[in-house]
Amino acid sequence: MPRSFSRMRLAVTLGLLLGSLTNRAADSEKLSAALTSAEVLAQSPDSDWRLLDPERTAYLDLPHGQVVIELAPGFAPRHQAQLRQLLTQHYFDQLPILRVQDNYVVQWGDPQASDPARAKSRGDAGGRLNAEFDIDSATALHFTPLGDRDVYAEQVGFIDGFHAARDAVSGRTWLTHCYGALGAGRDNAADSGSAAELYVVIGHAPRHLDRNVTLLGRVVKGMELLASLPRGSEAMGFLADPAKGSPIRRFRLANDIAESERSALQVMRTDSPSFRAWIASRRSRHEEWFVNPVGRIELCNVQVPVREARP
Amino acid sequence: MPRSFSRMRLAVTLGLLLGSLTNRAADSEKLSAALTSAEVLAQSPDSDWRLLDPERTAYLDLPHGQVVIELAPGFAPRHQAQLRQLLTQHYFDQLPILRVQDNYVVQWGDPQASDPARAKSRGDAGGRLNAEFDIDSATALHFTPLGDRDVYAEQVGFIDGFHAARDAVSGRTWLTHCYGALGAGRDNAADSGSAAELYVVIGHAPRHLDRNVTLLGRVVKGMELLASLPRGSEAMGFLADPAKGSPIRRFRLANDIAESERSALQVMRTDSPSFRAWIASRRSRHEEWFVNPVGRIELCNVQVPVREARP
Repeated sequence: MPRSFSRMRLAVTLGLLLGSLTNRAADSEKLSAALTSAEVLAQSPDSDWRLLDPERTAYLDLPHGQVVIELAPGFAPRHQAQLRQLLTQHYFDQLPILRVQDNYVVQWGDPQASDPARAKSRGDAGGRLNAEFDIDSATALHFTPLGDRDVYAEQVGFIDGFHAARDAVSGRTWLTHCYGALGAGRDNAADSGSAAELYVVIGHAPRHLDRNVTLLGRVVKGMELLASLPRGSEAMGFLADPAKGSPIRRFRLANDIAESERSALQVMRTDSPSFRAWIASRRSRHEEWFVNPVGRIELCNVQVPVREARP
Repeated sequence: MPRSFSRMRLAVTLGLLLGSLTNRAADSEKLSAALTSAEVLAQSPDSDWRLLDPERTAYLDLPHGQVVIELAPGFAPRHQAQLRQLLTQHYFDQLPILRVQDNYVVQWGDPQASDPARAKSRGDAGGRLNAEFDIDSATALHFTPLGDRDVYAEQVGFIDGFHAARDAVSGRTWLTHCYGALGAGRDNAADSGSAAELYVVIGHAPRHLDRNVTLLGRVVKGMELLASLPRGSEAMGFLADPAKGSPIRRFRLANDIAESERSALQVMRTDSPSFRAWIASRRSRHEEWFVNPVGRIELCNVQVPVREARP
């Protein structure tokens, strides 16, 4: 392994340089077949990373730390617009965590939302929204196929940093419920969500929720703060007394807080050669520990790399 | 739905009664196609459940509660024998949690294990064990196929309450890394595990670990106590100072503690008609909330039901 590694690294570097002249995907996949994930990260050029866009980034401040959320471009525009209104009006500030269900979701919002007399004012923001479970595949640009099969969908892959799936027959594309996915809670009616109650997946991917509820984005930093919350004692993990749990100190769009308070995070571009090399390194494991390098990977086991921007 | 439900329940009851005269699997699957999971649980006969065997059950007592672990019959016999010796000698009592990596594993053992001068005595128990990643399929009885495809294995299903996979070409069967799976940590050498350092999966199923490390069993109760532990701050979630984390108060085989201190838990038999109906109810969701009933399921999204025994 160590001896062949230098040669392999040279080949990959050449492959990345020559990428625009040849078939990038096929080349980088083939050439990077023996790289570890750490090597892919170390070798990725800065051009294969993008800064989080403050228009699509939200900071959820909890008593024990900050969760950074990225909203997915192109998905659930009505829910995202309403969420932006709520964030701008500081709707979520001081509201509690409502639900922490083990191996499933953390959910937050107004415990009095269903009682018009006691519900917190939504200001200019509207109420129930039509469901936005999926979009027309033609509008979902930059779909990077994973290349491995999937239990739940015909094809899975990545769009702009988000785990996604699509189906050729229906011509639809949707975000998938992987660890860290952000969704808009709803009641039994498909159009009963309002973006005023949100949830994040904290367990094994509940992919049966795909196309059953509207996904908006994903957590890019701070998942451990949500996933380690004490579980709720009531049915489905609801807290017996949400007021005794973790209050939301502040939940804001990045653009609404001082630049000095924002994280400078970069996400690896999922349409880049580095990301194809990343997938390959996660699919076939060349770290010394692995006896069986596996050779396949399930969508939600591919984490999209996030790093602090270099100063 | 409500109107057709009574007829369906009668049909299922008849199906279960007539099961021994006909093709049980096909019948119960077909007849239970419209049952919800709650209905399957409510209707399952006591004969489709089994009590935990105290010879194969271990209690991990943490400061904040008790985790109940079942060891898998037939898998990893050397690791299980050595673990039994360690449990009998109270080896783990007062040892700390070493690692809590978000979306991955909790691990516990002796932080001084690699220093012979300071390591806790293992008494009569031996050291390194040959890897036990899989077994001959011929010895894995009662394999209940899930029936859905899988990303990582040719066939997946259940053996005696445990998630498992098998491969016809190699003729091998192995336990899979679903949420709650219990494994024996090891260093880079495949034979460097000793059952003295254990881990439990607390995140999205890291199925790439299948056949790379020895699995022994699974947590049947108390997962939330492990999954909500504060994450370690060091690389790979190791705790900077394990002594400041949660100590193991006691880790014992059920047979070694007073009957009054044991839980009376029952696990649904995975070779029973109820379990086939359970899978069907999880695959096609008939709860009112679901807009899209899905119609497929991934192995680790099938949780094997566990309940308190009725007095």
